[in-house]
Amino acid sequence: MCAVHAPSGNEKDMCDFVLNYVQKNKKSWKHQPKVFYGKEFQDCIVLVFGKPRTAVFTHLDSIGFMVRYGKGLVKIGGPKTIDGIKLVGEDSKGKIETSLRVTEDKKKGIKKLEYHFNRDIETGTELTFKPNWRETKTSVQCCYMDNRLGVWAALNLAENLKNGVIVFSCFEEVGGGTVSFIQKFLQEKYKISQALIADITWCTEGVKPGKGVAISVRDSLIPRRSFLEKIISIAKNSKIPFQLEVEDSGGSDAKELQRAEYPWDWCFIGAPEENVHTPDEKVNKKDIDSMIQLYEVLMDKL
Amino acid sequence: MCAVHAPSGNEKDMCDFVLNYVQKNKKSWKHQPKVFYGKEFQDCIVLVFGKPRTAVFTHLDSIGFMVRYGKGLVKIGGPKTIDGIKLVGEDSKGKIETSLRVTEDKKKGIKKLEYHFNRDIETGTELTFKPNWRETKTSVQCCYMDNRLGVWAALNLAENLKNGVIVFSCFEEVGGGTVSFIQKFLQEKYKISQALIADITWCTEGVKPGKGVAISVRDSLIPRRSFLEKIISIAKNSKIPFQLEVEDSGGSDAKELQRAEYPWDWCFIGAPEENVHTPDEKVNKKDIDSMIQLYEVLMDKL
Amino acid sequence: MCAVHAPSGNEKDMCDFVLNYVQKNKKSWKHQPKVFYGKEFQDCIVLVFGKPRTAVFTHLDSIGFMVRYGKGLVKIGGPKTIDGIKLVGEDSKGKIETSLRVTEDKKKGIKKLEYHFNRDIETGTELTFKPNWRETKTSVQCCYMDNRLGVWAALNLAENLKNGVIVFSCFEEVGGGTVSFIQKFLQEKYKISQALIADITWCTEGVKPGKGVAISVRDSLIPRRSFLEKIISIAKNSKIPFQLEVEDSGGSDAKELQRAEYPWDWCFIGAPEENVHTPDEKVNKKDIDSMIQLYEVLMDKL
Repeated sequence: MCAVHAPSGNEKDMCDFVLNYVQKNKKSWKHQPKVFYGKEFQDCIVLVFGKPRTAVFTHLDSIGFMVRYGKGLVKIGGPKTIDGIKLVGEDSKGKIETSLRVTEDKKKGIKKLEYHFNRDIETGTELTFKPNWRETKTSVQCCYMDNRLGVWAALNLAENLKNGVIVFSCFEEVGGGTVSFIQKFLQEKYKISQALIADITWCTEGVKPGKGVAISVRDSLIPRRSFLEKIISIAKNSKIPFQLEVEDSGGSDAKELQRAEYPWDWCFIGAPEENVHTPDEKVNKKDIDSMIQLYEVLMDKL
Repeated sequence: MCAVHAPSGNEKDMCDFVLNYVQKNKKSWKHQPKVFYGKEFQDCIVLVFGKPRTAVFTHLDSIGFMVRYGKGLVKIGGPKTIDGIKLVGEDSKGKIETSLRVTEDKKKGIKKLEYHFNRDIETGTELTFKPNWRETKTSVQCCYMDNRLGVWAALNLAENLKNGVIVFSCFEEVGGGTVSFIQKFLQEKYKISQALIADITWCTEGVKPGKGVAISVRDSLIPRRSFLEKIISIAKNSKIPFQLEVEDSGGSDAKELQRAEYPWDWCFIGAPEENVHTPDEKVNKKDIDSMIQLYEVLMDKL
Repeated sequence: MCAVHAPSGNEKDMCDFVLNYVQKNKKSWKHQPKVFYGKEFQDCIVLVFGKPRTAVFTHLDSIGFMVRYGKGLVKIGGPKTIDGIKLVGEDSKGKIETSLRVTEDKKKGIKKLEYHFNRDIETGTELTFKPNWRETKTSVQCCYMDNRLGVWAALNLAENLKNGVIVFSCFEEVGGGTVSFIQKFLQEKYKISQALIADITWCTEGVKPGKGVAISVRDSLIPRRSFLEKIISIAKNSKIPFQLEVEDSGGSDAKELQRAEYPWDWCFIGAPEENVHTPDEKVNKKDIDSMIQLYEVLMDKL
C-alpha cells in the first residue's frame, strides 16, 4: 500500500486501491457498510455502518515533490528535505527513479531543491518517496506510514464495526479540501456530530514509541475539552495503553471540522512515529495494536 | 467574572456563569429574549430579542497556557510571555498556583516556557492568569478584560435591547470554531446579515485610552467599506466619543463571518486596552461607557 | 478601467463600472445572460448564460494602501513597497495625489511606510496606484492589470458565451470573502461543480511573456489532478499556445472553492505579467489573446 502513488491532489490510485480492497473483502466483515464514492465524493470514500454516531477520518494522500522548471522541485506538503533521498514518478517519457539534491545558501537562508536525473523531467510531474519496507518483531518502517497506517487501521476497524462511519479523505497534507463536503453529507444524512481523526503523529520527549496510541490534547488546534475528557475516561476504563500528546504545532483533517458550519466535536487519536515525513517513518507495532483497540472501544462507547 | 477559568476549548464554566446571570436577571430586562444554548450550541449562548436585524458577537474564552511534558508549557492563543507572571489551574492532585518561567536562547531565537512548582503538573492541564482586580475612578485593570469586558458590555446592552441578537462565542483566541454554525443558525432562522464584534482592542499611537470606543477600519481583516461608513455616520450623529482604528494585524470573530457562505457585513467595535494579553489589561471607564452607548444606538439605527 | 478606485473592501465603483458596461453592451452579445447583483451579492456580479456547467471567477478588487495615523500607511493586500511610487485617493478634504516613502530599519528588519503630502490625510483613507497606461504593438502596461485584465477578458468572453457563468468577485487580494456565498448560490441554483480562475499570474524562469496563457499546475494550492489533466488535454488539442506553471506560493479565489462544503473542481488559468503588484504591471498581448481563446474553448468543452 505504501508504494501507491498518491500525492495530495492525485489520490485516484489510492482511492481505487482502497475501493478495490473494500469490494473484495467486505463479504467477510461482520456488518455490511453502505459504500459512497464517485463524482460527488471526488477521490474520497465513505463507509457507513449501521446507525452511526461517530465518524473516523483517515487521509489517503501523501507528501511528495513536484517538478518545477529545469531541474527544480517544489514540495507537496511538508516532506523533510534530506539530500540524497530516493524519489520515484512517471512522466510521458517513462518511469523515473531519481534522487533529491539539496543545496543551501546559508547567507540568504534559502534551500534549493533539485533532482538528479539523466534527462529533464516534465514540468508538473509528481515525485514521491521510493518505498523501502522494513519490518521487525516490534516495528514497521517505510515512507508514508503517515497515513497508510491510518488507512490500514481503519480497514481493520471495518471488519467488526457495527455502527459508525469511516471516511477516506484527500488533500490533508496541503491543508484540506474534502472533509468539509463530506461533513456536510454526514451531517445532513446521518445527523452525526462526533469525529475521530485516525492519523499518525510524532514521537517526542513526551510521546514514546511502544507506550501506546497517542490521544492528542491539542496541536495547533484545540478540541473541545468536554469531548476530550470523555475519550480519556473511556480510554482509562478500557485499560488499553495510551499517551497524552500536547503540541503547539501540526494540524489535521480536524481543521475543516472545527471551522465548519456544524457544531461537531473531534479528537485526534493515532500511533506516533519516528522520522516524521521522511522515507523512514517507523511505528511500533504495539502502538498500532492499541490504536485499533481504542478505536473499537470508542466507536462502541461514544 | 475575570476569575472564571475558561481558556479556549474549555469555556464551560464561563458559559454556565453567563447563563446563570441571564436566567437570574432577565426578568428585570425591558424585553425578554429567547435563550438558545445546549448541545446544538456547544458552550455558546445566543440571546434573541424581538425582530433582530443585527447580531453582536462577544467571545467567552481567554488565552492561557497548557502543560506539555515535565515542566514545559505551550501557549493557548497569544499570551505575552513575561517571566514571573502568576498562573492558576487545577489537576487531579489539586489546585495549582504557580508562575511562568521564561528562558531565552538568543542564538537560536527560541523562548522556552516552563512553570515553577513543587511537583509536576499533569500533562494537558490548563493554566490561566491569576486575577488581580484593580479599580480606580477612571479605569479597571485585571487579566482578561479581553474579553470579559465585552461580555459585560453585552450583558449591559441586553437590559434595554428591543431588537437584536447577542452571541457569546467560544474558541476566538485560537482562530475560531463556533461563529460559523451560529451564523448559519441566525441566517436560516432570522435572515440576519449584519454583525458587530464586541471585543477589546489595543491602545496604540493612534488610539488612546479615554478618547472613546474604537471603531476598527481594519485589522488583518477589512470590513466592507459601505457598512463601515454607515456605522461611522451613525456614530458621528450620536455625538458619542469614538476613535478610528487602522491596524494591519490582529483578528477577531469576524474572520469566520467574512469567509462564510453568507453575504454578511460586519465591523469590530470595542474599547481599547493597555498591556494587551497580560495579567494587567487596563481599560478606561469612559471608553467602556462609550462602547455601551454606541452599541445601543447602532442596534437601534442599523 | 485601471483608473477605477476599488481596493479590497471598497469595490463599489468597480462593481458599478462593470454593471454599467454589461447593461450597455449585452444587447450586442450572442446570448443574453441573467444578471445577478445587489444586496444578496454585496459588490459582486454574476452573469449566467444558458445551461451552465462551468463558472469563471474574476476579481474586481485591487491592492493598495490605507492611511493609519499621522503620515503612516499600511498595505491592502501585497503591493510592492517601492520608494517614490505615486498614489492617489480622496478624503473629506478633497482629492489626493501623493507618493510612497519607504524607510528601512535594517537592524530590526522593519520597513516603515509613509506618504509625502502637504497635509495629514484622514485615518482610514485608501490610496491606490496612480494609473499610467502604456501600450505598444506587443504589450499593455499599467497598474492593476491584475485583475482588470481578467475582468476585461471575462467581458470579452461574454460576447459569445452560450453556456456558462461569469463571476465578478471581491476581496480576493486580502484572502477572500465573497466566493463562498456565490459558490453556494451557483451550487444550489445551477448544480455547477467546475470553476476556472481568470486572474493574472507571474512571469518567472519557466513562464515567459509571449509564450501563451499560463495553466497553473499549482501555487500554494493544488487543483485536483484529473481536472487539470482534462484541461491540459483540451488545451493541447486546441493548438492555442499555453504554458504550465508550477509555483509553491501565491493564491487565488480558488482557496475558498477548495475549502468549501461542495466538491468543486477548479483550475487557475491566466496570462502572466511582469512587475507584479507594482504600478508597472506589463502583459504581452499574445498572452491575452490566448487567454481569451482558451477560455472560449474550455467553456465549450468542459
